[in-house]
Amino acid sequence: MTEETTMELIKRRMIGGELSENEIMKIINDISNKKLNDIEIAGFIFSQALRGMTNNEVLSMIKAMVETGKKISFENQIIYDKHSLGGVPGNKVTLLIVPIVAAYGLMIPKTSSRAITSPSGTADTMEVLAPVEFQAEEVISMVNKTKGLVVEADNDICPVDADIIGIEHYLGLNPESMMVSSILAKKIAMGINRLVIDVPVEGTKVGSMEDGQRISQRIVKIGKKIGLEIKAGLTYGGQPIGNNIGPTLEAQEAVESLKITHPDKTNSLIEKSTDLAGILFEMSGVEKGKGKSIAMDLLISGKALDKMKQIIEIQGGDPKILNEIPKSQHQETIECPRTGYVTQVDNSKLIKIARLAGAPEDKTAGIVIFGKRGDKIKKGSPLLKIYANNSKNLSKALDLALTSKPIKIEGMLLKQI
Amino acid sequence: MTEETTMELIKRRMIGGELSENEIMKIINDISNKKLNDIEIAGFIFSQALRGMTNNEVLSMIKAMVETGKKISFENQIIYDKHSLGGVPGNKVTLLIVPIVAAYGLMIPKTSSRAITSPSGTADTMEVLAPVEFQAEEVISMVNKTKGLVVEADNDICPVDADIIGIEHYLGLNPESMMVSSILAKKIAMGINRLVIDVPVEGTKVGSMEDGQRISQRIVKIGKKIGLEIKAGLTYGGQPIGNNIGPTLEAQEAVESLKITHPDKTNSLIEKSTDLAGILFEMSGVEKGKGKSIAMDLLISGKALDKMKQIIEIQGGDPKILNEIPKSQHQETIECPRTGYVTQVDNSKLIKIARLAGAPEDKTAGIVIFGKRGDKIKKGSPLLKIYANNSKNLSKALDLALTSKPIKIEGMLLKQI
Repeated sequence: MTEETTMELIKRRMIGGELSENEIMKIINDISNKKLNDIEIAGFIFSQALRGMTNNEVLSMIKAMVETGKKISFENQIIYDKHSLGGVPGNKVTLLIVPIVAAYGLMIPKTSSRAITSPSGTADTMEVLAPVEFQAEEVISMVNKTKGLVVEADNDICPVDADIIGIEHYLGLNPESMMVSSILAKKIAMGINRLVIDVPVEGTKVGSMEDGQRISQRIVKIGKKIGLEIKAGLTYGGQPIGNNIGPTLEAQEAVESLKITHPDKTNSLIEKSTDLAGILFEMSGVEKGKGKSIAMDLLISGKALDKMKQIIEIQGGDPKILNEIPKSQHQETIECPRTGYVTQVDNSKLIKIARLAGAPEDKTAGIVIFGKRGDKIKKGSPLLKIYANNSKNLSKALDLALTSKPIKIEGMLLKQI
Repeated sequence: MTEETTMELIKRRMIGGELSENEIMKIINDISNKKLNDIEIAGFIFSQALRGMTNNEVLSMIKAMVETGKKISFENQIIYDKHSLGGVPGNKVTLLIVPIVAAYGLMIPKTSSRAITSPSGTADTMEVLAPVEFQAEEVISMVNKTKGLVVEADNDICPVDADIIGIEHYLGLNPESMMVSSILAKKIAMGINRLVIDVPVEGTKVGSMEDGQRISQRIVKIGKKIGLEIKAGLTYGGQPIGNNIGPTLEAQEAVESLKITHPDKTNSLIEKSTDLAGILFEMSGVEKGKGKSIAMDLLISGKALDKMKQIIEIQGGDPKILNEIPKSQHQETIECPRTGYVTQVDNSKLIKIARLAGAPEDKTAGIVIFGKRGDKIKKGSPLLKIYANNSKNLSKALDLALTSKPIKIEGMLLKQI
């Protein structure tokens, strides 16, 4: 019997066949060696979108993705990490979680990606404060000094992922099996041992609590089989985290939150960050239920802020940036057209407006929103402020904000008949 | 052909036949003359729950219900009224709307019912401030002096309604055709010309905006055919209006709202009351869009409060009660178990708790809630306070509040897996 070609394997998957470890290795190897063209890669993605993958197939994918790239090791140290499934604009929690966790003494060499479809990836946001491009070997020596880092992912870690993501983005598809393989393969290649996964639910990729629970349980289970200890936190994703969207504005809000000195000054960004950092602390042996308050203490004592200064310095930045983060040249404010309550904040509309304003390429571009669900806003008060360095982009973003109404304001009277 | 018996008419309705005006008149007359037993009335209600009624049948019902009772006339004056479809606890808007509308100079002799399934009907709440039981003839002479009143409905107005409601309550059914007939027949018998209907949507009898619009349009259309000018306001009913539930507590909150002197002090109760009063002002000829601000001005200028004093006095009460409304002997506070945001306030659970505490029979019994949707509440702050004169009722209500959790508090972390 002659061996099937890669395309034959992909077609077999498409009509419902399960592939073996060797067969999946062959496909991933071929992508890695540029032996598959875009249509063939698209076929592989379609086969997953259509039929899903068994956990065994996902395990084979993870193994193959790790094998086809660079692997780094922190020797006998336990390495912690945090990953978000994404979809919520303004989710700058990494810029709080990393300094909090590192200030406690745990190793957290966080690698983040740049924005693909969002107004700012964590790497884009961190780059406002310090350089983020490093080789994996540099990461090892740097993190030994500061315990924490926020850098861009090394391109040599799971390099096939970039080829696959390129086609996924073009197709507008991100099958669950591909997403899980890609996340976990990178963690294994980066030498991570313990991971908290943030699963934002509602208005994100994950539509319901049931979906969130199912995918979380699947990730935890697959993690176990590859020696990765995982806890998942289902978080509320129905509106932005904090109020700022866009690289500079998000960096600024993260820094402001690192500077709080009283727990009364908390907000959705701080709540979510300390929730997730607390889960990592409990994975390190802290008594169940005590993790969050340790995280909050590290924040209000200023220890996390001090740690952030060290991290900025070791990444080649100047900690003085924490005192004044540059603003965009142009701004435009939309006032609230009526007194009422915020009943809806639309993530996808805000993302479009922030990107039209120029984010993430224009680092200062973005949006600040002045109301979250349930807030009361008075007629004439600011509702939304758009920032951009380019005045044409600003006016395009403003137009979209005025017509698409990303923040819905309602009074008690909904309609008169 | 022998004439059908009433029961034969009802059976014909049940299998889908439309009844004529004379046939419906025969049924209503028989109920009025106690010629139908409970089972026959139940059949008539079932026939409506099962098959609905045409608008012509509803018109016949209204005519018959008016004919079988007392009718009053205010001669050539235009009489205004407000009616709420109900289902929202704490809906004490009448106690603001009537003095606001009367202070403007419009006649609004509001008749209200006592609670059937709620913790407080408007008549129960008003009775905390002044007597409410009057004959229709007394209402005419009183309202000529004050323009406004808040009294209990005269039992001789549409008396069949009480017989029908008794059976509906027992069956747990309130068919739309019966509800619309009952509301509009009483308005016609009371000599009303212009009416604003409050249609609370979500968590009430009306589940969706679509349903709210359909029923509103139906009521407006039927009103037109009987010479009643109606506007409907669809209002948000997903949580209580204001924060207090129970006769005394609601009266207290209404009085506090009548005392505001600055528009910044507004709340959901004031917003809704001025929205609905504003609709009545626009029906009286005020330019479209200006009604609400007139209502707000009458409130903050103290004119509505002065009017309320006159109304209390003419109904035989002492306006001094506005300075201090008596409290229950016993109270119990539930503290917020965690810092977080209010994500849900359950109307039906709050109604059950307030009724267990003794409302409406124990006028001082009820609940004050300290958070509405979107509010942030800190761990240890008061979340809910229960009031009762009877300590046994208090402990029963407290138990239910602790176990059923009518106010849902969530942080950013929804669940950990």
